[in-house]
Amino acid sequence: MSHNSFGHLFRITTWGESHGPAIGCVVDGCPSNIPITAEELQVFLDKRKPGQSRFTTQRREPDEVKILSGVFENEQGDLVTTGTPISLIIENTDQRSKDYGDIKDKYRPGHADYTYIEKYGIRDYRGGGRSSARETAMRVAAGGLARKVVPGMIVRGAMVQMGPHKINRDNWDWAEVNNNPFFAPDKEIVDVWADYLDGLRKSGSSIGAVVEVVADHVPVGLGAPIYAKLDQDIASAMMSINAVKGVEIGAGFGSAELTGEENADELRMGNSGVEFSSNHAGGVLGGISSGQPVVARFAVKPTSSILTPRKSIDRSGQNVEVSTKGRHDPCVGIRAVPVGEAMMALVLADHYLMHRGQQG
Amino acid sequence: MSHNSFGHLFRITTWGESHGPAIGCVVDGCPSNIPITAEELQVFLDKRKPGQSRFTTQRREPDEVKILSGVFENEQGDLVTTGTPISLIIENTDQRSKDYGDIKDKYRPGHADYTYIEKYGIRDYRGGGRSSARETAMRVAAGGLARKVVPGMIVRGAMVQMGPHKINRDNWDWAEVNNNPFFAPDKEIVDVWADYLDGLRKSGSSIGAVVEVVADHVPVGLGAPIYAKLDQDIASAMMSINAVKGVEIGAGFGSAELTGEENADELRMGNSGVEFSSNHAGGVLGGISSGQPVVARFAVKPTSSILTPRKSIDRSGQNVEVSTKGRHDPCVGIRAVPVGEAMMALVLADHYLMHRGQQG
Amino acid sequence: MSHNSFGHLFRITTWGESHGPAIGCVVDGCPSNIPITAEELQVFLDKRKPGQSRFTTQRREPDEVKILSGVFENEQGDLVTTGTPISLIIENTDQRSKDYGDIKDKYRPGHADYTYIEKYGIRDYRGGGRSSARETAMRVAAGGLARKVVPGMIVRGAMVQMGPHKINRDNWDWAEVNNNPFFAPDKEIVDVWADYLDGLRKSGSSIGAVVEVVADHVPVGLGAPIYAKLDQDIASAMMSINAVKGVEIGAGFGSAELTGEENADELRMGNSGVEFSSNHAGGVLGGISSGQPVVARFAVKPTSSILTPRKSIDRSGQNVEVSTKGRHDPCVGIRAVPVGEAMMALVLADHYLMHRGQQG
Amino acid sequence: MSHNSFGHLFRITTWGESHGPAIGCVVDGCPSNIPITAEELQVFLDKRKPGQSRFTTQRREPDEVKILSGVFENEQGDLVTTGTPISLIIENTDQRSKDYGDIKDKYRPGHADYTYIEKYGIRDYRGGGRSSARETAMRVAAGGLARKVVPGMIVRGAMVQMGPHKINRDNWDWAEVNNNPFFAPDKEIVDVWADYLDGLRKSGSSIGAVVEVVADHVPVGLGAPIYAKLDQDIASAMMSINAVKGVEIGAGFGSAELTGEENADELRMGNSGVEFSSNHAGGVLGGISSGQPVVARFAVKPTSSILTPRKSIDRSGQNVEVSTKGRHDPCVGIRAVPVGEAMMALVLADHYLMHRGQQG
Repeated sequence: MSHNSFGHLFRITTWGESHGPAIGCVVDGCPSNIPITAEELQVFLDKRKPGQSRFTTQRREPDEVKILSGVFENEQGDLVTTGTPISLIIENTDQRSKDYGDIKDKYRPGHADYTYIEKYGIRDYRGGGRSSARETAMRVAAGGLARKVVPGMIVRGAMVQMGPHKINRDNWDWAEVNNNPFFAPDKEIVDVWADYLDGLRKSGSSIGAVVEVVADHVPVGLGAPIYAKLDQDIASAMMSINAVKGVEIGAGFGSAELTGEENADELRMGNSGVEFSSNHAGGVLGGISSGQPVVARFAVKPTSSILTPRKSIDRSGQNVEVSTKGRHDPCVGIRAVPVGEAMMALVLADHYLMHRGQQG
Repeated sequence: MSHNSFGHLFRITTWGESHGPAIGCVVDGCPSNIPITAEELQVFLDKRKPGQSRFTTQRREPDEVKILSGVFENEQGDLVTTGTPISLIIENTDQRSKDYGDIKDKYRPGHADYTYIEKYGIRDYRGGGRSSARETAMRVAAGGLARKVVPGMIVRGAMVQMGPHKINRDNWDWAEVNNNPFFAPDKEIVDVWADYLDGLRKSGSSIGAVVEVVADHVPVGLGAPIYAKLDQDIASAMMSINAVKGVEIGAGFGSAELTGEENADELRMGNSGVEFSSNHAGGVLGGISSGQPVVARFAVKPTSSILTPRKSIDRSGQNVEVSTKGRHDPCVGIRAVPVGEAMMALVLADHYLMHRGQQG
Repeated sequence: MSHNSFGHLFRITTWGESHGPAIGCVVDGCPSNIPITAEELQVFLDKRKPGQSRFTTQRREPDEVKILSGVFENEQGDLVTTGTPISLIIENTDQRSKDYGDIKDKYRPGHADYTYIEKYGIRDYRGGGRSSARETAMRVAAGGLARKVVPGMIVRGAMVQMGPHKINRDNWDWAEVNNNPFFAPDKEIVDVWADYLDGLRKSGSSIGAVVEVVADHVPVGLGAPIYAKLDQDIASAMMSINAVKGVEIGAGFGSAELTGEENADELRMGNSGVEFSSNHAGGVLGGISSGQPVVARFAVKPTSSILTPRKSIDRSGQNVEVSTKGRHDPCVGIRAVPVGEAMMALVLADHYLMHRGQQG
Repeated sequence: MSHNSFGHLFRITTWGESHGPAIGCVVDGCPSNIPITAEELQVFLDKRKPGQSRFTTQRREPDEVKILSGVFENEQGDLVTTGTPISLIIENTDQRSKDYGDIKDKYRPGHADYTYIEKYGIRDYRGGGRSSARETAMRVAAGGLARKVVPGMIVRGAMVQMGPHKINRDNWDWAEVNNNPFFAPDKEIVDVWADYLDGLRKSGSSIGAVVEVVADHVPVGLGAPIYAKLDQDIASAMMSINAVKGVEIGAGFGSAELTGEENADELRMGNSGVEFSSNHAGGVLGGISSGQPVVARFAVKPTSSILTPRKSIDRSGQNVEVSTKGRHDPCVGIRAVPVGEAMMALVLADHYLMHRGQQG
């Protein structure tokens, strides 16, 4: 059992607070002889890094990851994993603690301030402390390693809804995702979102979003029924991301409105193996991967850090008003895209190892 | 790590196939001195039992649970838990295996037939074997015990959507839930659903649904960030139920369309403690219970067992057609209501024990 | 986390009390397609069965194991594992509860009576309840399955010391082990032990013992440093057996008196691979199997169930005297031999699967 | 499951290699509001630090521990735990890698060189890499925190045997333990050991030892049968320490020679509660603490790093000779004393939290 670890065989343990000296992650269970460098992990961290556009928080952190253990030069002189735990660390550099002083004793509505104090009797209030989304940087770094565990697997994410504005799925183009500050796969939505978010940003407001993550080339057979189902672990993974309030696989909540005839993905033998007529299942049948793309979506709530004052209480039980003046993301869904990708990669790497150990 | 266990400190391990001699569950970690009888567990099993109305499968199983270990008479002569593992068993009595013979080698679309064979190379095809929802009977039994672990807690579930027909939330009345065969909390929807489902049932079709589960009187402080968050474990619990394709907490996917102002649940000091102006959070902040009702919803897909033939393949790789002639539920969401309740109770009992062990 | 489960990937969960209706075990994580029948498991149970000679308890239990789930006929008509949990059950038939009535409220010295009451506030006192060595029958059954997981592996145990009488290791002959009621590998010790134990038995006394378990043909590379070392898990496994007070690997406590020169097992390339000059390491280097035989020994204390009255207290805090009149083993070390074998097999099967999942 | 984590609720995860940039540990599950500073942990590290006398390795490491997360100032201005993971780190400063160059491809007998290469296909050979006892520094640091979790508990260790020379238990005086370089509780053995070890040290040889660890003021009721028994977890903990080959509780292997009459610890009601006439059980009955001192001993083999050349093979399968010229401990048992204390504290803190969560 663990509170700060995720995964079964491929397992991460993260530590650190938003404004402490550093944050970090220990990756345990990674097979040996996987080539890896800090630079490779940095690519994914840079996608998540704040301050990349006017649409994310202006906090400036280089978020430079270092590898402190678990890798060594092989006989060819390449850095590879050794099978021992891989310690990743990012030093915190931009800790403007003064921004957070006035929320020391006030509970921000929608944040974890109240529940942390009720549970622990103490909290590091600076920047949200442990409950800050800063922790997700370590997931992204570890996810970069997880991607390399399953041969051929590709994990990609995109934002598919911001507030009331959904993408047009007919326009879906993975190539567009990195061409805009929203990870939008539909280039026609970009201006709509930009205008919409500018308005919210200037008024100090915020908005929710939906993110979709797709894993291609996932081997058949990953997932361990009944209680380590692949989709169950994906649900757990995505719901563990800060601000996520819902997770769905394949047709998801839409399947409530489908008949059995509509929902069944028919099978046929094709030239290169089994083919499915559709993917309402999202690549998972009975908790086990089917070889189709694994498709998950999750809903991200709007951050509760807004300029408009909200009613709350303080630690002494007095009624107060709270508004948040710090630097924040008007749509935290944007930076949740690389985090969602990372969580998908972590779950699949883990199940890949489990399946390999268990198979008959 | 385990494939057939759920929970951290309060932990269930289930076993058994749909058409084997029995199914069972071992409950480990239950505190001692909790009064419990098989009759008390039977109440919850009877809610899930098939054949209760024309709207559920006509398979007739008494589903009578026995307790084989872990309870003993205390000094007052009452049966109580002893702190040792509690073994629950239900014998399978109505095993009309002949209904399933022709799917021995055919993969039913939407079912786990294909993936089980790909993963394990063998499967007990009778009635779905291990992938049958019959396993959920043991969750319901164990959930009956979990309900007694958290003092004062009440867990209730209801169906809130069948196909395109949603309840009117203004009509919500918990007292109605057991007055109709759908666990509907809105008495006005009952006839609508009955007519709708009769049509589907007669044509051998099926339909999806959405179930909502609410836990009242949950203590503040349950949940263990970062990776044993209360909502994360609820997501895992619900997604592990057969046919579930989506899970949401509080405002859920709806929060994608809310602004920060709309979404924030404001706090005030009331006469009997902290009061919240709303519950978009669904009772969970930062992964920790806030003392508000914990609210989860999950989407259940239509069963793929339908009369209309669908295209598929068989084990030898030949294209075939499959239709399901056995006795099945036209809307598996109905019987998922007591299962959802049980999973909620299991998660909360587990986190209650964890919190008690861990608190500073 | 779990209190009644053992193992990581190959995992058993046992349940049941000495005098309840049954005892049982769920084996989770067993690979599919392993041929197994109840009869095969029965062979090992019969070795542990009470009443086999005058030197073990005269309680008569057929200890007949049934398999309730997780096996199915394959295409050749053989029963094989399916990858789903295997539920094993033994019904309790000889429950002479009257023997135990007078220890209902008295704490037997050296038994778990006092600590169970202090921990749980209640206990099933009949025959020791959950703390009875009867639970080990399920380990033996599960161990029979574990033996088949690692191809070619052979696990054998023997008693090497009873009270002050040690075997002569020069006489070691595995073929003798099943020719005497003590599992002695030295036929010359048999009469010595028989005479010695007859004396103790007639006076209602008891004596300790040392058991040795050896696993041959263990693949190189099993064991996961730092905290799932093979020897660490063997130590945990053996110490979990009732009445065990010490565990050692290879040279064990004797290594405290060795110099580095004496202790080092030298390596040479032989005709069929690496050869070691000795096996002080007991087959484990740095927590990983070396390909040498894995050798463990454990000390079993004398049972505290003796005829001579001992001072104790009762549940109300009164000073009392306790003597045990029930049927008991004068040397519980004898029946610990098949249990030790089973635990060794369970650890090795588990690490075999882990290694297979993890390797680079 | 995890390879580099230890504990259930109070859980450590260690990382790092002997000659990498740093080693570290994440402590998860520590309750909040426990006062802790790096200086307090340093006290225990200094006991284990190399180079304290001529009898331990002359490698000079300040072994200065830093706390990177999980602590915060409380309202009184004291640093306390916050309930979030505590990251501990020690930078490696004295990395004379040149000492280890010639063992890059040679397998040292008795070391993990051969098995690591067989398992992982690669290893960080510098100073033993991950298999170096350097990792135990992090156990000692974490153990310093664990000591504070159980109110009133005192954990102390001592060396009781070096080679053939055992202490006289009648001379036992805890006050002597820190007055000599051997952690000997018997001042009369000190000169004997000093002379004996000087001889071995000068000849480049090494010797084994036995260490005893005692925990006083352990609450009754810790330990979770059947498979998280207190003594089982102690056995696992001690066997996980580098070079340990045997573990025993209470009378341990000596109990093999005791009769039931001799072995039973009788109970009487004393003025301040239950009193035991003896402690053959070592404070554990049925896997649960009895309130008596918890007593464990473990055997440490002689280090295989010796000057005398030994036969071995190299990575290419050639026969070679190996001698170790680096700085090493002639009796690694000495520095194992604080490590054994730490492991005992970790197990007891863990079970204290488990018991608190679980009790009925």
